[in-house]
Amino acid sequence: MSTAGQVIRCKAAVAWEAGKPLKIEEVEVAPPQKDEVRIKILFTSLCHTDVYFWDAKGQDPLFPRILGHEAGGIVESVGEGVTDLKPGDHVLPIFTGECKDCRHCLSEESNMCDLLRINTARGEMIHDGKSRFSINGKPIYHFLGTSTFSEYTVVHVGQVAKINPEAPLDKVCVLSCGISTGFGATVNVAKPKKGQSVAIFGLGAVGLAAAEGARVSGASRIIGVDLNPNRFEDGSTNLAAIYITKKFGCTEFVNPKDHNKPVQEVIAEMTDGGVDRSVECTGSLPAMISAFECVHDGWGVAVLVGVPNKDDAFKTHPVNFLNERTLKGTFFGNYKPRSDIPAVVEKYMNKELELDKFITHSVPFAEINKAFEYMLRGEGLRCMIRMDA
Amino acid sequence: MSTAGQVIRCKAAVAWEAGKPLKIEEVEVAPPQKDEVRIKILFTSLCHTDVYFWDAKGQDPLFPRILGHEAGGIVESVGEGVTDLKPGDHVLPIFTGECKDCRHCLSEESNMCDLLRINTARGEMIHDGKSRFSINGKPIYHFLGTSTFSEYTVVHVGQVAKINPEAPLDKVCVLSCGISTGFGATVNVAKPKKGQSVAIFGLGAVGLAAAEGARVSGASRIIGVDLNPNRFEDGSTNLAAIYITKKFGCTEFVNPKDHNKPVQEVIAEMTDGGVDRSVECTGSLPAMISAFECVHDGWGVAVLVGVPNKDDAFKTHPVNFLNERTLKGTFFGNYKPRSDIPAVVEKYMNKELELDKFITHSVPFAEINKAFEYMLRGEGLRCMIRMDA
Ligand SMILES: NC(=O)c1ccc[n+]([C@@H]2O[C@H](COP(=O)([O-])OP(=O)(O)OC[C@H]3O[C@@H](n4cnc5c(N)ncnc54)[C@H](O)[C@@H]3O)[C@@H](O)[C@H]2O)c1
Ligand SMILES: NC(=O)c1ccc[n+]([C@@H]2O[C@H](COP(=O)([O-])OP(=O)(O)OC[C@H]3O[C@@H](n4cnc5c(N)ncnc54)[C@H](O)[C@@H]3O)[C@@H](O)[C@H]2O)c1
Ligand SMILES: [Zn+2]
Ligand SMILES: [Zn+2]
Ligand SMILES: [Zn+2]
Ligand SMILES: [Zn+2]
Repeated sequence: MSTAGQVIRCKAAVAWEAGKPLKIEEVEVAPPQKDEVRIKILFTSLCHTDVYFWDAKGQDPLFPRILGHEAGGIVESVGEGVTDLKPGDHVLPIFTGECKDCRHCLSEESNMCDLLRINTARGEMIHDGKSRFSINGKPIYHFLGTSTFSEYTVVHVGQVAKINPEAPLDKVCVLSCGISTGFGATVNVAKPKKGQSVAIFGLGAVGLAAAEGARVSGASRIIGVDLNPNRFEDGSTNLAAIYITKKFGCTEFVNPKDHNKPVQEVIAEMTDGGVDRSVECTGSLPAMISAFECVHDGWGVAVLVGVPNKDDAFKTHPVNFLNERTLKGTFFGNYKPRSDIPAVVEKYMNKELELDKFITHSVPFAEINKAFEYMLRGEGLRCMIRMDA
Repeated sequence: MSTAGQVIRCKAAVAWEAGKPLKIEEVEVAPPQKDEVRIKILFTSLCHTDVYFWDAKGQDPLFPRILGHEAGGIVESVGEGVTDLKPGDHVLPIFTGECKDCRHCLSEESNMCDLLRINTARGEMIHDGKSRFSINGKPIYHFLGTSTFSEYTVVHVGQVAKINPEAPLDKVCVLSCGISTGFGATVNVAKPKKGQSVAIFGLGAVGLAAAEGARVSGASRIIGVDLNPNRFEDGSTNLAAIYITKKFGCTEFVNPKDHNKPVQEVIAEMTDGGVDRSVECTGSLPAMISAFECVHDGWGVAVLVGVPNKDDAFKTHPVNFLNERTLKGTFFGNYKPRSDIPAVVEKYMNKELELDKFITHSVPFAEINKAFEYMLRGEGLRCMIRMDA
């Protein structure tokens, strides 16, 4: 019996207040409206961006909210005007959208759709400014237009990538945010040339995907930088950490805490003046500044990926720019979600891109708070949350 | 009778202390040493960088010093090891050099030679750490390795571009710094595409050369930004100003003082979200920040050219980068002085590049302080100083 057009009652993990464990609740999910799609989520994983808005320290708080934006699922029903998706399609909901009609969508360079670009402050659907989630009639806010910590969610069609139905959703799920973001930041934006050196700041899933991009690009040296000693093989007692260094392309590691000078100086000494490229995947302001200042003058390019606090100010001497360094930033690795992500999924299917190694933990939906604990402790990379379990 | 190997006594304009008029003195110019060239300067013009180090407010003071770095002359004699220049060659001395041997000189992207890149703090020759200028045995400091406010000067061979002897030195002189810097910043670094919009901050010679680069690139809108109302046609009583707007490609002007919101917001409103490219040619920190923040998200590129104060800090919210804006800086428009400048001179000879319009004043050497007055008053563009007069 079809559920199309009906309110669906299902389980969702609700963040009731900042920093408090999510609670699994029974929610009502309204049918999709114009240009919307209702998706049955099968797998979702936790990205650091969820944690920032859950803990809401450097960000505007908005509660109660259903977080989650890295996920894979199947279309349950579609709203009015949706023609290129139908029930049964396998999809990845994506935090930044593509209307295919605005100046950005028509530009080759940008993926910052005027209508559907990432908007962390919005808690409702664009169509009518209302939420599709409620508990006893009380609305629960959306997050990034995706809210994947729910058995069913409603997403704007422009934020849905239709993918190969043979692709295992419990793996390609991570292409919905972190891995595409990191990999794309290197291959689409930093663009290291064969033989060049690359520094990666932050060795979470996003940073290691950026390192994977450097490896695929033929970088000669890939210097991983992280404050968390668990991210390094030697001295670590953490199994996940050992797993990481064996499988990822980093050739060297630097922990800024092991040095009593700025890490950009340490890197400049290691590399005779600086790396050719750097990619920052931490969200930490000092790391952003170091990532910029550690690139070589004359040709160095640094790329910012981490989500800053809302009051952060990037600060550097203008001579660091005059000395012919370039600084850029990117959302979602400059991929256009609907146009480009299906092909990235194919890269996985053709074994050109590994994903399995990024998934270090797995929990049933009921234990979603464990995923938060792993990330807060810096343990492992992605924790896969199984909705059916 | 050849003067090679001899000390030459000639006139030079000496800056004895910060901000005080230069004094024309009789100086002794030692013969060129290993890898050095002694040049008879015929024409020199004043660039704002000279004024910064003369007035020494935001820079380290170093006096007594012979300033000057935009010039044209003829080789008088060469030192040991110099093989690709000979007496009689027509040359432009250039503030940043090219050894043709270091990583930068071998890189296609950089012109920041490890040995000969701009060094504003150095007052002596690299070879022996000594000055070639003296008055009664007391050394006078060099400036940028060029010190062209002298009838004769000694320059490292790597800082000398050999040019077509038919090129009029009183015109191509300005390619020695300002015009190449501004033109190159646009065509080599900002690289606007045909039909794009470009904002130019600062409408001195450097900025107007950047505007010329935008015009040559086929920009659809060229928005000039300057605080000095003399730079604008309407309301100006200044002849040079009228001359400027008639001959240069700017299609619109904005004076930040005419608005009570930041100029980046004014420009964003004029251009539906921001310009495609901007080039900052002021040396003013607020202008650098505005030039960055006024480019369109998704694809905008801003280029810094102006020389900042030594304690300046560039400051912006990191989200301005994440929104897919790019910030770069450049010295000398990314031209390699010896390899590239002869071809830029040919562009002038072939009438692909106009130079005459940049030269708005002319004074005999004895009246060099007038050139400083014109620049301090923001009158005109380049003042040509005639050494023989
Ligand atoms: N721009 C985008 O489109 C986009 C998309 C996804 C994630 N993000 C952001 O990317 C960042 C990384 O996400 P993740 O899921 O991999 O997080 P993560 O927590 O798994 O990894 C971040 C790593 O950075 C390290 N780190 C923190 N501060 C550091 C510093 N000062 N120097 C060096 N290392 C430091 C941490 O120890 C951690 O290992 C986050 O800021 C996230 O919000 C951005
Ligand atoms: N990077 C390089 O290789 C290089 C080479 C040459 C010159 N420069 C620098 O380029 C800059 C321009 O040189 P120039 O010779 O054309 O100088 P100039 O004095 O002739 O022109 C500078 C213009 O900027 C304007 N200005 C100052 N502050 C401003 C602001 N906040 N907003 C808008 N306009 C402002 C002034 O009114 C003036 O018209 C200087 O800083 C100079 O040192 C750099
Ligand atoms: Zn994410
Ligand atoms: Zn769009
Ligand atoms: Zn100059
Ligand atoms: Zn060199």
